Amino acid sequence: MTVQTAPVADRPAGAAGESPEDLVARLARDGRAAQRVLARLTDAQKAEALRAVAGVLRAAEPAILEANARDVAAGEAKGLTGAMLDRLRLDPARLAGMAGAVEQVASLPDPVGEVIAESERPNGLKLSRVRIPIGLIGIIYESRPNVTADAAALCLRSGNAVLLRGGSEALHSNRAIAAAFAEGLESAGLPAAAIQLMPTQDRAAVGAMLTAVGLIDMIVPRGGKSLVARVQADARVPVLAHLDGICHTYIHAAADPEMARGVALNAKMRRTGICGAMETLLIDTQFPESASVVAGLLDAGCELRGDSRARSLDPRILPASDADWDTEYLDSVLSVAVVDGLDAALEHIAAHSSHHTDAIVTGDPAAAERFLNEVDSAIVMVNASSQFADGGEFGLGAEIGIATGRLHARGPVALEGLTTYKWLVRGSGQTRP
Amino acid sequence: MTVQTAPVADRPAGAAGESPEDLVARLARDGRAAQRVLARLTDAQKAEALRAVAGVLRAAEPAILEANARDVAAGEAKGLTGAMLDRLRLDPARLAGMAGAVEQVASLPDPVGEVIAESERPNGLKLSRVRIPIGLIGIIYESRPNVTADAAALCLRSGNAVLLRGGSEALHSNRAIAAAFAEGLESAGLPAAAIQLMPTQDRAAVGAMLTAVGLIDMIVPRGGKSLVARVQADARVPVLAHLDGICHTYIHAAADPEMARGVALNAKMRRTGICGAMETLLIDTQFPESASVVAGLLDAGCELRGDSRARSLDPRILPASDADWDTEYLDSVLSVAVVDGLDAALEHIAAHSSHHTDAIVTGDPAAAERFLNEVDSAIVMVNASSQFADGGEFGLGAEIGIATGRLHARGPVALEGLTTYKWLVRGSGQTRP
Repeated sequence: MTVQTAPVADRPAGAAGESPEDLVARLARDGRAAQRVLARLTDAQKAEALRAVAGVLRAAEPAILEANARDVAAGEAKGLTGAMLDRLRLDPARLAGMAGAVEQVASLPDPVGEVIAESERPNGLKLSRVRIPIGLIGIIYESRPNVTADAAALCLRSGNAVLLRGGSEALHSNRAIAAAFAEGLESAGLPAAAIQLMPTQDRAAVGAMLTAVGLIDMIVPRGGKSLVARVQADARVPVLAHLDGICHTYIHAAADPEMARGVALNAKMRRTGICGAMETLLIDTQFPESASVVAGLLDAGCELRGDSRARSLDPRILPASDADWDTEYLDSVLSVAVVDGLDAALEHIAAHSSHHTDAIVTGDPAAAERFLNEVDSAIVMVNASSQFADGGEFGLGAEIGIATGRLHARGPVALEGLTTYKWLVRGSGQTRP
Repeated sequence: MTVQTAPVADRPAGAAGESPEDLVARLARDGRAAQRVLARLTDAQKAEALRAVAGVLRAAEPAILEANARDVAAGEAKGLTGAMLDRLRLDPARLAGMAGAVEQVASLPDPVGEVIAESERPNGLKLSRVRIPIGLIGIIYESRPNVTADAAALCLRSGNAVLLRGGSEALHSNRAIAAAFAEGLESAGLPAAAIQLMPTQDRAAVGAMLTAVGLIDMIVPRGGKSLVARVQADARVPVLAHLDGICHTYIHAAADPEMARGVALNAKMRRTGICGAMETLLIDTQFPESASVVAGLLDAGCELRGDSRARSLDPRILPASDADWDTEYLDSVLSVAVVDGLDAALEHIAAHSSHHTDAIVTGDPAAAERFLNEVDSAIVMVNASSQFADGGEFGLGAEIGIATGRLHARGPVALEGLTTYKWLVRGSGQTRP
């Protein structure tokens, strides 16, 4: 089995003189037509198509790795950092992981067709609300080629078509992966246009995606803060995203000291670069083991920036500036404040949280419940590391992203968040009086 | 009990030199602070506050009717049409109806706190998703003062604060009604800022509401198409709305003729000005009683505009232009096409529906299920009049509006659509491996 990869040179945007808006409109029309086919598929048909895609991804290993090698070589020539090259690079193990992830998505329960609610009216009308796909999802992402496969698999599993726009660094890799999806879909008898990769790296085409109201139903940006900020600023299409993960952990007076040390260390240091990593530690003035919690973090190599009371706990703590309380470090850096009780902690969190994930450590059930009720974040935790903020850890099987907006879907978003619903009304000739 | 109505003259936007953006930000801050109080109330407390409001509305009848009389007199002097004056006018019966509607909302089940889903992970983490209020809702509406009470009651019942911006024609009426809400809330010990009326009619303040991302969580426009179109075009805040109700009824070959006549007549003529009124009738070429269906509509005084095959059914049918298939008449006018079977009907609907409500009349269960599955509208009906598209008729008790967007809430939206959710995670010290 061979995968036809695209020519090396950037393909033209389409017909000569086609504007970015016309290009996006054309791709969206094709994607929406393909989506109408997906919407009618059974659970088994969608799962089978994804397993076919996984098979093609495995069979196409030489072509995909060759395309990736070209991207990596170009990235090295361009002087990309080691971290960027690592995100870009595929190898046989990573490619096998990508195919396995597609099969894992195939094995997830299909949300489409679920009856959310049913009722019967006194006049005999039978009402139900059933889950349906959203339609056409736009994914805008950076240099990680596995996003191509992850996002396409989740969209297809939930009956959505997808228009992918990846970073130029990964162009050849993305084309090879998208070609494998197209081949797998066609082998399963499905329209290849259900997954489309933007054929140009023209930045104006991104702008056209963001404003394609009525053509693209939802945009999911996947990448760093500047990407998300640009998408949120410019989009007229609804966006599912989080900008910041300024996550707090509050150690309450009644926290178990051992648990507090373990949770704080894990929340910050397990992986410092993920959005669920703790960025601010709040320690109750009545908590008796404050010094050992901060010492544990300092000893693990974390830089601590504290208010004056926190600094009195350990001489190694640097002074925090006002900006520290609103900073997502994504690094081995943590701001620390000592607070006077639960109310002060809630107030600090209300003022500084990015409403992603905030946690309390406490042995007091009443304090835990107040924290759960009153913290207004997508995820609120008691006695657990904020690094659990993840679709896989929440049992969703995967995630398309984590959302901090207030509408539609919040926190880790997977298949259910890629669906909407419609009302079905079954009557027997009723007319309205 | 007296209600202090605002002075007659338009109040200044706030502190001297306060910009529309600063005004909206100040009102939003006050509203959000009040909302944090609402979010912690019990079901009973919210219901009691609404009953207190209803009592004040009744007691304030003289003040509210006097304020309304000033609006009506100004409207007459300005030359408002009879229909506009009728929408504006309050009388003792209408005011009693308004107070009764507030009590009706108080009696609806409170969606806040509902546990949507629960699970336990292998590591012992207990997850739940619980309904919470959205936050601060902005309502932008025209001259009907009862929207002030309806929208405020629904928002309060679901724990949301509301910022209301009504039309200038109803300014005094709206101020008197808002003052009654404030008095009722305060008598129940709640912050009056939970419901605020924009203190200026400056149009720039509407623009500031539409772009108040992070301050206003959702905008609901209530009014005619030009208002909704402006809000949808300019808003950066999420909007819950429908622009058009281009609703279809398709009479399938296997429709019961009597039912077809009754449903078509009701769908069009019961009330022609509502968004659920049928605007296009599709008749299957195999349906044997087409002539009597169109005769029933014509005899009832409806103007019919048909394609050539429809026109052959009755000489009174006028020719339809291309634009007719995409027109929401909101009047005693209907476009009629004869279609070749279910597929052709689905194709016409896919091309021309505004995705509000579409219906089939058929005695064939397989045709009914295909129609329900394949029509991509917020509401899809079988053997029922599209005029049932209404929150009250759906058993929701009330509605804040009907939405045709694809995310968050669709079709008739009431209390549940004014909520979102958060994830609660209860652990016992878990750290992520």
